[in-house]
Amino acid sequence: MRAAIAGASGYAGGELLRLLLGHPKLRIGALTAAASAGTTLGAHQPHLPQLADRVIEETSPQTLAGHDVVFLALPHGHSAAVAAELGTDTIVVDCGADHRLTDPAAWREFYGGAHAGSWPYGLPELPGQREALKGARRIAVPGCYPTAVTLALFPAFAAGLAAPDVVVVAASGTSGAGKSLKPNLLGSEVMGSVSAYGVGGGHRHTPEMEQTLGAVAGTDVRVSFTPTLAPMSRGILATCTAPAVPGLTRQALRAAYHEAYATEPFVSLLPEGAWPATAMTYGANTAALQVTLDERAGRVIAVIAIDNLTKGTAGGAIQSVNLALGLPEELGLPLTGVAP
Amino acid sequence: MRAAIAGASGYAGGELLRLLLGHPKLRIGALTAAASAGTTLGAHQPHLPQLADRVIEETSPQTLAGHDVVFLALPHGHSAAVAAELGTDTIVVDCGADHRLTDPAAWREFYGGAHAGSWPYGLPELPGQREALKGARRIAVPGCYPTAVTLALFPAFAAGLAAPDVVVVAASGTSGAGKSLKPNLLGSEVMGSVSAYGVGGGHRHTPEMEQTLGAVAGTDVRVSFTPTLAPMSRGILATCTAPAVPGLTRQALRAAYHEAYATEPFVSLLPEGAWPATAMTYGANTAALQVTLDERAGRVIAVIAIDNLTKGTAGGAIQSVNLALGLPEELGLPLTGVAP
Amino acid sequence: MRAAIAGASGYAGGELLRLLLGHPKLRIGALTAAASAGTTLGAHQPHLPQLADRVIEETSPQTLAGHDVVFLALPHGHSAAVAAELGTDTIVVDCGADHRLTDPAAWREFYGGAHAGSWPYGLPELPGQREALKGARRIAVPGCYPTAVTLALFPAFAAGLAAPDVVVVAASGTSGAGKSLKPNLLGSEVMGSVSAYGVGGGHRHTPEMEQTLGAVAGTDVRVSFTPTLAPMSRGILATCTAPAVPGLTRQALRAAYHEAYATEPFVSLLPEGAWPATAMTYGANTAALQVTLDERAGRVIAVIAIDNLTKGTAGGAIQSVNLALGLPEELGLPLTGVAP
Amino acid sequence: MRAAIAGASGYAGGELLRLLLGHPKLRIGALTAAASAGTTLGAHQPHLPQLADRVIEETSPQTLAGHDVVFLALPHGHSAAVAAELGTDTIVVDCGADHRLTDPAAWREFYGGAHAGSWPYGLPELPGQREALKGARRIAVPGCYPTAVTLALFPAFAAGLAAPDVVVVAASGTSGAGKSLKPNLLGSEVMGSVSAYGVGGGHRHTPEMEQTLGAVAGTDVRVSFTPTLAPMSRGILATCTAPAVPGLTRQALRAAYHEAYATEPFVSLLPEGAWPATAMTYGANTAALQVTLDERAGRVIAVIAIDNLTKGTAGGAIQSVNLALGLPEELGLPLTGVAP
Repeated sequence: MRAAIAGASGYAGGELLRLLLGHPKLRIGALTAAASAGTTLGAHQPHLPQLADRVIEETSPQTLAGHDVVFLALPHGHSAAVAAELGTDTIVVDCGADHRLTDPAAWREFYGGAHAGSWPYGLPELPGQREALKGARRIAVPGCYPTAVTLALFPAFAAGLAAPDVVVVAASGTSGAGKSLKPNLLGSEVMGSVSAYGVGGGHRHTPEMEQTLGAVAGTDVRVSFTPTLAPMSRGILATCTAPAVPGLTRQALRAAYHEAYATEPFVSLLPEGAWPATAMTYGANTAALQVTLDERAGRVIAVIAIDNLTKGTAGGAIQSVNLALGLPEELGLPLTGVAP
Repeated sequence: MRAAIAGASGYAGGELLRLLLGHPKLRIGALTAAASAGTTLGAHQPHLPQLADRVIEETSPQTLAGHDVVFLALPHGHSAAVAAELGTDTIVVDCGADHRLTDPAAWREFYGGAHAGSWPYGLPELPGQREALKGARRIAVPGCYPTAVTLALFPAFAAGLAAPDVVVVAASGTSGAGKSLKPNLLGSEVMGSVSAYGVGGGHRHTPEMEQTLGAVAGTDVRVSFTPTLAPMSRGILATCTAPAVPGLTRQALRAAYHEAYATEPFVSLLPEGAWPATAMTYGANTAALQVTLDERAGRVIAVIAIDNLTKGTAGGAIQSVNLALGLPEELGLPLTGVAP
Repeated sequence: MRAAIAGASGYAGGELLRLLLGHPKLRIGALTAAASAGTTLGAHQPHLPQLADRVIEETSPQTLAGHDVVFLALPHGHSAAVAAELGTDTIVVDCGADHRLTDPAAWREFYGGAHAGSWPYGLPELPGQREALKGARRIAVPGCYPTAVTLALFPAFAAGLAAPDVVVVAASGTSGAGKSLKPNLLGSEVMGSVSAYGVGGGHRHTPEMEQTLGAVAGTDVRVSFTPTLAPMSRGILATCTAPAVPGLTRQALRAAYHEAYATEPFVSLLPEGAWPATAMTYGANTAALQVTLDERAGRVIAVIAIDNLTKGTAGGAIQSVNLALGLPEELGLPLTGVAP
Repeated sequence: MRAAIAGASGYAGGELLRLLLGHPKLRIGALTAAASAGTTLGAHQPHLPQLADRVIEETSPQTLAGHDVVFLALPHGHSAAVAAELGTDTIVVDCGADHRLTDPAAWREFYGGAHAGSWPYGLPELPGQREALKGARRIAVPGCYPTAVTLALFPAFAAGLAAPDVVVVAASGTSGAGKSLKPNLLGSEVMGSVSAYGVGGGHRHTPEMEQTLGAVAGTDVRVSFTPTLAPMSRGILATCTAPAVPGLTRQALRAAYHEAYATEPFVSLLPEGAWPATAMTYGANTAALQVTLDERAGRVIAVIAIDNLTKGTAGGAIQSVNLALGLPEELGLPLTGVAP
């Protein structure tokens, strides 16, 4: 089977290619982009020497046609038009935000413009979601932060152990901001510095977290989300807290997480006393998770590490595609991080 | 006037020396340490070439005697005994935790052992505290995290704008953990990785935050505090949140902060739209602060950056000593960070 | 086939395990160590969740017996005794230095003590070496710096294009120094800083470079080698220079390198104008190489990037084992780096 | 006395401002720039809170007029025209390259276009240069790399201890490349990676090194120079080597360096066995230097660390201005680095 990548010169595109090179069932087909069309991939992804001489084509219905899977790693608002031109038998995977939100009002509030509608949400670990992805022909890849936060907190909400008043602070590596040439993303600015951005409820991933957690909780969940930028290329560490329900014990909390993740291949609940570090998941499709009860403050504290480009984007995308194609879910996805 | 530094080979000691070298009224006297006694300072603090040949002495009442100021940068539990041997005219500055907490029960719960009693708290920005430090002969330097969190949130509590249910997540540079040889502090482990530690309410700085904020709020304040370690040598970025009181507006919130910091020399309330980065305060005795109202989630969000070694330890210590000595509070303290 | 790893809790051991987890023909057998014996691997290599519960055993002839391959990632001087106890049918791979040098005098000068003798040198790219490794039952894994420097310069010497007066300056990530708890390896010390060490001809990898290049050149080669420590966990960037022979042209130089590496799977000669970055090879068994002629100074300048833990240690080791076992040389070895 | 800064929004401009804020005799006058004109300085240099509200003006003869000192931190080729409009009594300091080279042919070869002529070279440590700078009204600030390399090697050439066949490999922090928005300078690209650039003799600082060393040696000096980019914001570590003259001893070499630097305020020759790290000079106007003889290879190896923005640009500029103004050379210049 052949997969095309639209947006092949960017960071998400590069990670898709890295993983597809190790995938036994998906062959890499067309590589397309906008500004980079006509150049070779080696100029953009020098860590992929096997593809160095591949020429990037224009993103268009023609160049993307004839593939079994099309990954769209495009800016917001560009996916719907491309997808409309692709056959309904083609698996179209939107790594952007266009098809994540089910609520048009939330879309308008956070993104503006017309809502493209929602596609099956590519987070197989969510209750019921694995089934929904089997045979899917359109897949909305979750945002990197919502992937982390949902995995960290849904077991507490599924078990009715937390109140729906969530506070999340997350640190992300700079690749989460893409390859855009902004002064605040220069190495000189980010090295040796942690900074905040998108503070105060305005980050576009907020309604997505409220959507996933609210669906599990069966009630509206409010999320106060503060993202920060950390001096590393990859990785998200999210500290996710919610008020504990009265009488909750550490044991009951832990048991709920054990149950939620007992058979999940990609989520490790760490042993007691160990806490996640993003290095544990560097380049892997895994999540390292820990949870505890802050008894003084009466809060559930779940901390999770993922690689924003792997489990947070490209790996999660391929995991869902595996399900859509009826392949083993883990196929071609690294369980081992690169450390130190 | 002469100042001795006990613990001169450590990170806090080195920062005290760096600042004292630029202080017009304090001369550097004895340099003492435990394991490093007998070696030259250049082996430990090669960034201070002027002091490279100074020999480190044993920390003892004899070596520390005869100074106007004695800075104690010692492990927990060592300060009280040393201070007891120093004259009551000597200004003794405890950069450790021994004399920060006023509540013996909190001390026992978080540190264990006998409580050494509390000294005037070296955070001049706290309401009333500047006066308390004038002429003081014993000073407890606040912890680095409590310095950040207190500065970030006390204006909200002082103005009655927040409920006492605080959630803080902070990222610290590795120098906050000192020079101890622990595997998790090796460069190979920390570079490229953000990790959590002390999660769940057990970090020793928690009761100190509750003490400072509770005193301002006039009521008990609960703090859920999660520290993380970021790949940088210096700096703390703390995201500090508390439920907003009903009806609070962004304007009222901002006005309270403007009022609190209108005349403070070391705390900058950033212009609207700008958010703190630790690089803004690298090597400076300053804090970069921003606050907003998350209207969806109903929370006050204050984000603050400090240098954990400067404003968070050595600079804050000297600021308080300036007050104790009747000197201008800003004397010898850098207002400019080193960036990029 | 089963492989044991002695030194499983260290960085080289961890990288061997990461790669073996993806190797289709080698199963992971005993994991052994010295100080870490009795603990679980998860405490040391949390990026390998599949092996988290494996218990580390004592390194001994008993625990290592019964394996087809034994990887020794031990401190210098420990391998010979262990190897003597292992059957001559077992493939014993020494990732340490004990069996690299053929000249006992060089061993004594740089390492001291008795020379353990030399084993087949595990650098298949060296002329003739691939054949020497087929069927080998003892393999000396090259040092990380000599791997880089030899690959960078041997084509020039093989083609007679350079004089044997080499100057090398290399930057290494901190994992090259292992997990040893030394103050200069603390994150606070290495982040934001490049430092020199082992300057002046004393680095133990120097005679190894002289040995490999001298063998290719057919004459004594002198190497002036200066290593530096860079603020990154992994990677070596080596700048390798030698006087050009009179009349050398850029074209002739480049042609020699093209010829040397035309069919090598793991070494990429970059397109003209592109220069290596260690990120190109992060976690991969590859080398990114570029060469040019400095016409003003009359020197060949070759710059190479490798991952010190992969091609520089564990990946190179497995590459040689593949040859020794008659397997395809590339089996289980990543060609793709993890970037950005 | 008042100093204007043209190019106030860049990294060199920011460092000039940081240092001038601590200078007792120079007041900050006009701040000018090109694209940033009309914005406030706080948007560009948030680490300088005292100047946050200062408005940046257009760089022009009018805005720069009426100052005692004008610092030009402009792109190459812009300084001569501006200087021509400023009075000959004004001290004009060119932090760019326009007036460094004395040889018009070297200028044309490396920079192209018409040569603007040379000004007194702002490196007071060079033999005779301190006198040349006293009373100067035009000053060419050396390049950051030539500052490091000249300080590292001139004592060997002055004493006739080295042959004029120099090989230099240097690592620089990313601020050396300025604030330009290039993909290879993004944090995601530079963190965790060392890369080479400008290899093969083409770096524009090469003829400048040959000029300074050649003047001291009294003969032509060839320099093979390879710069690399390291994952840090600031700092240069340069490894500088040259063939030792026959019979040279380590003692004689060291004695020459001791003599050269016995009374220099800003250059520290480290104790034997210690080697430079850029962290030693972070934010300081100092150089940390060590030299040894590689007896096997017959080469002098000098390694030096400086801060590219301080001693390498802004601090060196102010040091020369102090001399030009008849002030103490060290005035306002930090001798202490910020570490860890």
